[in-house]
Amino acid sequence: MKNICLLGATGSVGENTVNVVLAHPEKFTIHTFSFFNNIQRGRQLIQLLKPKMVAVGTKEIADYLRSEFPFITFTYGVEGLSEIVALESIDLVLTAVSGSVGLLPTLTAIRERKQVAIANKETLVMAGQLVTDLATQYGVQLLPVDSEHSAIFQCLNGEKIVEVDHLLITASGGSFRNKTRQELVDVTLEDALNHPNWSMGQKITIDSATMMNKGLEVIEAHWLFGLDYDKIKVVLHKESIVHSMVGFIDGAVMAQLGASDMREPIQYALSYPHRIKMKEPKPFHLAEIGALHFEEMDFNRFPLLQLAYTVGKMGGTAPTMMNAANEVAVAAFLEKKISFLAIEELVEKAIQEKHYIKQPDLTTLMEVDKETRKLVASWLT
Amino acid sequence: MKNICLLGATGSVGENTVNVVLAHPEKFTIHTFSFFNNIQRGRQLIQLLKPKMVAVGTKEIADYLRSEFPFITFTYGVEGLSEIVALESIDLVLTAVSGSVGLLPTLTAIRERKQVAIANKETLVMAGQLVTDLATQYGVQLLPVDSEHSAIFQCLNGEKIVEVDHLLITASGGSFRNKTRQELVDVTLEDALNHPNWSMGQKITIDSATMMNKGLEVIEAHWLFGLDYDKIKVVLHKESIVHSMVGFIDGAVMAQLGASDMREPIQYALSYPHRIKMKEPKPFHLAEIGALHFEEMDFNRFPLLQLAYTVGKMGGTAPTMMNAANEVAVAAFLEKKISFLAIEELVEKAIQEKHYIKQPDLTTLMEVDKETRKLVASWLT
Repeated sequence: MKNICLLGATGSVGENTVNVVLAHPEKFTIHTFSFFNNIQRGRQLIQLLKPKMVAVGTKEIADYLRSEFPFITFTYGVEGLSEIVALESIDLVLTAVSGSVGLLPTLTAIRERKQVAIANKETLVMAGQLVTDLATQYGVQLLPVDSEHSAIFQCLNGEKIVEVDHLLITASGGSFRNKTRQELVDVTLEDALNHPNWSMGQKITIDSATMMNKGLEVIEAHWLFGLDYDKIKVVLHKESIVHSMVGFIDGAVMAQLGASDMREPIQYALSYPHRIKMKEPKPFHLAEIGALHFEEMDFNRFPLLQLAYTVGKMGGTAPTMMNAANEVAVAAFLEKKISFLAIEELVEKAIQEKHYIKQPDLTTLMEVDKETRKLVASWLT
Repeated sequence: MKNICLLGATGSVGENTVNVVLAHPEKFTIHTFSFFNNIQRGRQLIQLLKPKMVAVGTKEIADYLRSEFPFITFTYGVEGLSEIVALESIDLVLTAVSGSVGLLPTLTAIRERKQVAIANKETLVMAGQLVTDLATQYGVQLLPVDSEHSAIFQCLNGEKIVEVDHLLITASGGSFRNKTRQELVDVTLEDALNHPNWSMGQKITIDSATMMNKGLEVIEAHWLFGLDYDKIKVVLHKESIVHSMVGFIDGAVMAQLGASDMREPIQYALSYPHRIKMKEPKPFHLAEIGALHFEEMDFNRFPLLQLAYTVGKMGGTAPTMMNAANEVAVAAFLEKKISFLAIEELVEKAIQEKHYIKQPDLTTLMEVDKETRKLVASWLT
């Protein structure tokens, strides 16, 4: 039995994780979990999962739920996340929170030598060096949950990283893949949220449309697999069937494919190094799909992807700045305060304006994250 | 340094093997090799590879070459093949001969505990049970060389066979994939030899057109990977880019892809468990290829594939009979003695007419092979 701590239970990855865990009650149990402020769904999950301990967004929510569930321990805030992670009974921590809040509990999980399954890509984007150094120091393997990184991880199964020639991350192109930059000028929030292949959270759906998501994935792949940026490539693949690939020095390319079903990479991270039967699998027949298409990535069409490579190679605080600026800009777009193309402008402007530090410690990273958010927010008022 | 014995040096796989070995002189050397009767090319290979010992088709050829190369030992016939295999200095035997002649030297190689790389699929089709039992007994791993089986072998890297749901072997469809059965009535030998994707020997090119080749591969896969026939599927994939796939119980599908270049699976078998740099690799860009197509296999269109499943499930001498009948029929078609569709008729007739033995020993298998050839030949006069 694997005791799981699930950070971000009410989000899209969180709900899929609950689904996988409930499908295999003999193998997995969610021992502790967190949610931010979706009390209604949080209450249902408490009744469903009967956790030992729950972390929520604020003291008020914690107090409120304590009276309702007297036999469960409630905690809150970032410290709350670290508390439910560090419990001795926890074997694996799955970080499905959105945004930079995932960083500190991930560091705690590594120090406590838990298995760490990362669905929160900002953790590695913001602090890839720190997180991977710590994981090496504590002998902890970071398990990817993103479908792309899970695919690469599976392609690397039994292989040697020195025999890798390149990674090939597939990109669906997002909601606006058929639009020119000219046509992006007056797209709406509703248009942007309409992803062709995957049903995901709002933030990541917008990041897919700007291709920032793929940029974050490139940086995440750099840290997860320890490969130079010039060995990480992106190819457009509109069907999202091939989840990603690895090219080897002998010319062989390994690919992982399957249905667009987040339960697959989540379950793989939970069951690794084993594979277990998928309950009620989505049907998947290549002959019915008929054709898989691949196209060269156009970096002029998607400048944030280009920026992610630049910022990734700069290292230091640069990716932290990019990520913070992007989070604020996307939130503003979701609140209909700015246009779609303004997301790119704000992120690019933030990188240009901020002072850049090459070898930041954790405190510096957290400060730069906060300051960048403030700076971008100041441009919005 | 790996000392290689190459059986069938002047054939298509043989020549590609020589190419791979010469590209990595620090890793591989061809210590002994065989060829049947292509003296001209055989002589060049002797000068090029400077082998210790060479096996040829007949005593006459051996005597003739002895006078020319006094410092090289020549041997001949099936015993000759076993002799060059068994030399103590040999580490790996690659069986690239065509037809049933590959069986006995393969058994010798296993008994001598050599690494065995199998490009001669008839060995496993004729005597899969015997060969795999012996390999298990002597602790010898059989390395596939066929691009499809190498792909599956690579997909299984680091995986557990009990977690496999199915194998998915890709088939280009051969020279006549766009023709109906009606249109096959008057196709010529020249049409049949014009394979759309791979440049291979004549026998295998005809077998691709009848889909017998895919049938032989299904049986070979059954023995190599120890999976039931209902777990081995075939899908039409006209580009021959995805060389084959493995579906796992969790819904994930792993695929191996690459250029149509026989050097890749050959080199993988030689360098396994490592991958080494491919010298002058064929360019391979998915975005340039653009699209990969997959279609349901039509068993009515390709009855020999259906027959291979039936015969494979029967086991015993049935696959031996099918293979022997097919070799004689294809040879007759290559000599323009019979029509293309007559190949199918002869193979089906042989299976129906011959008495079938469930648990044959090696002598019985060799006899059934010989008798089936005689029987089919008798129908041709």
